[in-house]
Amino acid sequence: MIAKTPRPPYYAVIFSTLRTDTDEGYEETARQMEELAKRQEGYLGIESARNQMGITVSYWESLESISKWKNNIEHTVAREKGRLLWYKKYQLRICKVDRDYGFEV
Amino acid sequence: MIAKTPRPPYYAVIFSTLRTDTDEGYEETARQMEELAKRQEGYLGIESARNQMGITVSYWESLESISKWKNNIEHTVAREKGRLLWYKKYQLRICKVDRDYGFEV
Repeated sequence: MIAKTPRPPYYAVIFSTLRTDTDEGYEETARQMEELAKRQEGYLGIESARNQMGITVSYWESLESISKWKNNIEHTVAREKGRLLWYKKYQLRICKVDRDYGFEV
Repeated sequence: MIAKTPRPPYYAVIFSTLRTDTDEGYEETARQMEELAKRQEGYLGIESARNQMGITVSYWESLESISKWKNNIEHTVAREKGRLLWYKKYQLRICKVDRDYGFEV
């Protein structure tokens, strides 16, 4: 779903991925990481879509909250497994959201 | 595919969408807009994924190049059609990418 974020400024982590053919625990870990992210201080929301590639964008109150999430131990273990098993390639981009616009029917 | 962007800083437009059930011209226009975006000054790359929701992230050299792309006449017409026909809801976020990290097997 589209995340309900507050007024800018806030921060976004864009995680763009190409998967390997290995599924081993992937779905479960992805779900766990989403649940874990939601419990972090400064978490604002998450959006995720996948077909040939995956894009997950998580939204955060501050760079400090992103840094704490990055260093979370369970997240670190999952990231290691991601590099070993699930991802052929990924790019992670840390951004400051300065403006946003919404449309709804 | 994952966009090959230069060293930060650069800019990103995160376009998060929920579609209606109307397909009428959607795929063709989406393809045309991607081609048109690629020919704009300051364009750096695009990434797109869709399942229950869609996320398209386009990357740009400057806020000026984003503003010009926003005001491109063909893009404006497509955006109007998007609101009338194809999208139930969308959120557009304009961000400055300050840091990025890559991983490749």
